[in-house]
Amino acid sequence: MLRDPSTKYRPFPQVDVPDRQWPSQTITRAPRWLSTDMRDGNQALIDPMDAEKKTRFFDLLVKVGIKEIEVGFPSAGATEFDFISGLVRNGRVPDDVTVQVLTQSRRDLIEKSFQSLEGAPTAIVHLYNAVSPAWRRIVFGMSRDEVREIAITGAKILRDEAGKRPDTDWRFEYSPETFSTAELDFSVEVCAAVMDVLRPTPEKPLILNLPATVEAASPNVYADQIEWFCRNVPNRDSVIISLHPHNDRGTGVAAAELGLMAGADRVEGCLFGNGERTGNCDLVTLALNMYTQGVDPGLDFSNIDEVINTVEYCNQLPVHPRHPYAGELVFTAFSGSHQDAIKKGFAAQAQRNDGLWDVPYLPIDPADLGRDYEAVIRVNSQSGKGGVAWVLEQDKGLKLPKRMQADFSRHVQRVADETSRELNAADIWGAFEAAYLPSSGDRFELVDYSESHGAAGQARTFVGQLRLDGETRSISGKGNGLLSSLLSALRDDCGIDLDVVDYSEHAIGNGSDAQAAAYLECTLPDGTRVFGAGIDADVATATVRAALSAANRVAA
Amino acid sequence: MLRDPSTKYRPFPQVDVPDRQWPSQTITRAPRWLSTDMRDGNQALIDPMDAEKKTRFFDLLVKVGIKEIEVGFPSAGATEFDFISGLVRNGRVPDDVTVQVLTQSRRDLIEKSFQSLEGAPTAIVHLYNAVSPAWRRIVFGMSRDEVREIAITGAKILRDEAGKRPDTDWRFEYSPETFSTAELDFSVEVCAAVMDVLRPTPEKPLILNLPATVEAASPNVYADQIEWFCRNVPNRDSVIISLHPHNDRGTGVAAAELGLMAGADRVEGCLFGNGERTGNCDLVTLALNMYTQGVDPGLDFSNIDEVINTVEYCNQLPVHPRHPYAGELVFTAFSGSHQDAIKKGFAAQAQRNDGLWDVPYLPIDPADLGRDYEAVIRVNSQSGKGGVAWVLEQDKGLKLPKRMQADFSRHVQRVADETSRELNAADIWGAFEAAYLPSSGDRFELVDYSESHGAAGQARTFVGQLRLDGETRSISGKGNGLLSSLLSALRDDCGIDLDVVDYSEHAIGNGSDAQAAAYLECTLPDGTRVFGAGIDADVATATVRAALSAANRVAA
Repeated sequence: MLRDPSTKYRPFPQVDVPDRQWPSQTITRAPRWLSTDMRDGNQALIDPMDAEKKTRFFDLLVKVGIKEIEVGFPSAGATEFDFISGLVRNGRVPDDVTVQVLTQSRRDLIEKSFQSLEGAPTAIVHLYNAVSPAWRRIVFGMSRDEVREIAITGAKILRDEAGKRPDTDWRFEYSPETFSTAELDFSVEVCAAVMDVLRPTPEKPLILNLPATVEAASPNVYADQIEWFCRNVPNRDSVIISLHPHNDRGTGVAAAELGLMAGADRVEGCLFGNGERTGNCDLVTLALNMYTQGVDPGLDFSNIDEVINTVEYCNQLPVHPRHPYAGELVFTAFSGSHQDAIKKGFAAQAQRNDGLWDVPYLPIDPADLGRDYEAVIRVNSQSGKGGVAWVLEQDKGLKLPKRMQADFSRHVQRVADETSRELNAADIWGAFEAAYLPSSGDRFELVDYSESHGAAGQARTFVGQLRLDGETRSISGKGNGLLSSLLSALRDDCGIDLDVVDYSEHAIGNGSDAQAAAYLECTLPDGTRVFGAGIDADVATATVRAALSAANRVAA
Repeated sequence: MLRDPSTKYRPFPQVDVPDRQWPSQTITRAPRWLSTDMRDGNQALIDPMDAEKKTRFFDLLVKVGIKEIEVGFPSAGATEFDFISGLVRNGRVPDDVTVQVLTQSRRDLIEKSFQSLEGAPTAIVHLYNAVSPAWRRIVFGMSRDEVREIAITGAKILRDEAGKRPDTDWRFEYSPETFSTAELDFSVEVCAAVMDVLRPTPEKPLILNLPATVEAASPNVYADQIEWFCRNVPNRDSVIISLHPHNDRGTGVAAAELGLMAGADRVEGCLFGNGERTGNCDLVTLALNMYTQGVDPGLDFSNIDEVINTVEYCNQLPVHPRHPYAGELVFTAFSGSHQDAIKKGFAAQAQRNDGLWDVPYLPIDPADLGRDYEAVIRVNSQSGKGGVAWVLEQDKGLKLPKRMQADFSRHVQRVADETSRELNAADIWGAFEAAYLPSSGDRFELVDYSESHGAAGQARTFVGQLRLDGETRSISGKGNGLLSSLLSALRDDCGIDLDVVDYSEHAIGNGSDAQAAAYLECTLPDGTRVFGAGIDADVATATVRAALSAANRVAA
């Protein structure tokens, strides 16, 4: 490349709507949703779904709450026909769900399509033909009039076939194909001709589906096209304007959003954006985008993992780890500052208790999707103290004081740099043990201790049995409490002079299994700062262990 | 879910720019590109890159043509610092490439950042602090004034550290963090305060980077924010407005596009959209979107597979099969009507020969990315005759007549339905052999033949030796040509009455290895249509084989 592309590619022409209204609109209610997973999605799979997979997918769509489902292209082959007619007849379609089938504008194909739906209480027959100039010229060699005639002929067959089968409540959808690259006035002209045949009413509207069959411009252009179409189509109140964006430019979801702002009523797409080439508009992202703005999408993704599993099984394509809302990594923060902010956000959320979601870096509560908070923070060499502390608290119930978090994160950082991989909770616990908890190389090891105190106001006496440099020794000291008497014993008998800067303690767990954790931050006479931690079933013993932990740091 | 989200989530507030100009703009030139793959991308990896991977990634970015590369966060740890200072000193940075490092606004971190760049001829130091209300309230517990003061203090340290190191041409970037969720007036206020310290000029501008740290609204809102900011920031000509969109709502590329239309000059992002959570704006898609509009992005993706391979190796994350421009499936059409249109598009393209790209379903010429045309069409049970014919032509050089394509596609369809998987070229060739070419179960098998013709205008005589039902037999007939004399032999001696509807023939390959393919479409007296094909080194023999092929279809 690095050659000038202007000789080979042309900019997409702008739409003449200087008074466009959509940029000032917002989406305030859910559109009608149509899943084309089993048609547009399925036809783009390396290995299309067999009947078992199609059935599973259909059941998933129903469970998620999609009310209009394009189940296939019945005239494409016997397998497809049989599946669709089986689905319609086996009672799998709930009363409030309408199946839709796609057909080209040819008598034999339309008839087959109607036959496949025999027995359905209600169904949508979706007719399409290509109207755009490239298709007229390159693919069909047809004039505008000939192309419009194809649509009219198809519409008449729809009308007549429906008339022969009065037991089904027939709905119709018409797509002027590759709408996004067609002349807008011609698309309106063809749609109006189809309306003249099918005579839709506000009570029984025609669905006009306006596909960005190939995404060919930035999403604002699609919105301009939709607004232009909505303004110029006759009997706007007798048609449902449906969007069908693809994702060739990576902006399919944006196109749907701006298209809805421009006046559309309905969106066709696939779960996680499956579909031809780069895929269709991703219904999951679009719906959850609405959800995070307080707009009920009417779709249930509260068990997103189940949705992912079924879709991955049926499509044999992965959901990317960074896929919005659904990817494995999207509720994960590795960066220290992010982890810290999230941690504080959760705490503030709990304290505020007003029900409103406002946690930094998390546009949605992972719990709303059935995901765990625990997955939010993961630790690698780029992580900081916040994340490490969070993992330790989630995993072991330890709540390190702030400066001790910083001290510990340096230990973790070293491990992460050495291993050059993500650290899991066990790695972090291992680093904590190595940093603060008793180990065989320690200078001071607690064997036993006792403390005695006299009358109120009198000094306490600490007497401890330690293994010190391999030998059991007794040390003792006096102070006005356990900690001070222990520190004076360390100072007088062992030459370790610790000055307490901060001390804290908390229970881990509750009931008879509860343990206590004690943390000590001390300075030495030269200003050096050392930290110690102790864990024990007994509160006092945890404190003793924390002090010896700090003493061992000095000795080390 | 299916509960009302309005109690937990609030709609994003609109920006007050009723006279917004961006919706009427188009992108007519490339922005300045900044890759943050090695910083924002790297910090979001499960296993961050080691030095070898970072070096490979850096070299790739240089090769692609990125001129500003954020190489890391030097104060984050020793490994990071050492890599950056090594990179600067080992001569790997070309003269026209500027490295950038990120730092929080703290003296020790800023100093470390400058130290890591020691010896660079030019470098960008990127300062950030969080200005948005959620961060002020939840994370820092700070007032607006305190937050602004942090930015000012940081800017002063930047200025002073740069002053101490006059041998480097220092540039500065400032990011008011989570710009997209901050009050616009406050972002301008803080940026203006930073400008007061750093005193940028049109010749030496300050980069103001406006991150959608978390994508929190539809992309038009980001564009509104950018347009508002561009209008209200002082000395617009002394600042470079930089975008840094994330992709939490799946609209990061759209946000960048609309943001550029709104007046931005520069985009920060990652290749294939790596980065925290859902990733950063995907620079590949954004650049190629421009390319397909005839705008030279200044980036070279003419060997996209090499780019994919390196990025997948370094990030240990896949590029999704449907990723725009890059995914394995994005230049693939399985649907028959798509395949047919693409096939005609390529033919029209070749015929037009005007250099302009206009092929249905392909927004870019795969060859511009170093991809093959052959990958474009793949066949599964949803495919039609067009695709099958294309594969056969590409793979074996056979150009089936149109009605024979339809006949053959029914054979392929059956195989696809039976196997329920994608068919490769070998499968299709196998289907062709089984459908038309000689096999052991055939009734008629050619042993030898001769033809004699008398004077001009006289009938020819065909005499053939066949194995017929297992026995060698001689048949003969007269006609005014090879085909008619053979058909009369079949009619008179074997009772097979074939009427020729269509006959065609073409060479396969050229030179001494060339072969001939002949195709025959016939009807039987009852109107049944049969097709035959023959391939032979000799043109006449190919015709004989085609006729016997058709006869075998009748017998079968």
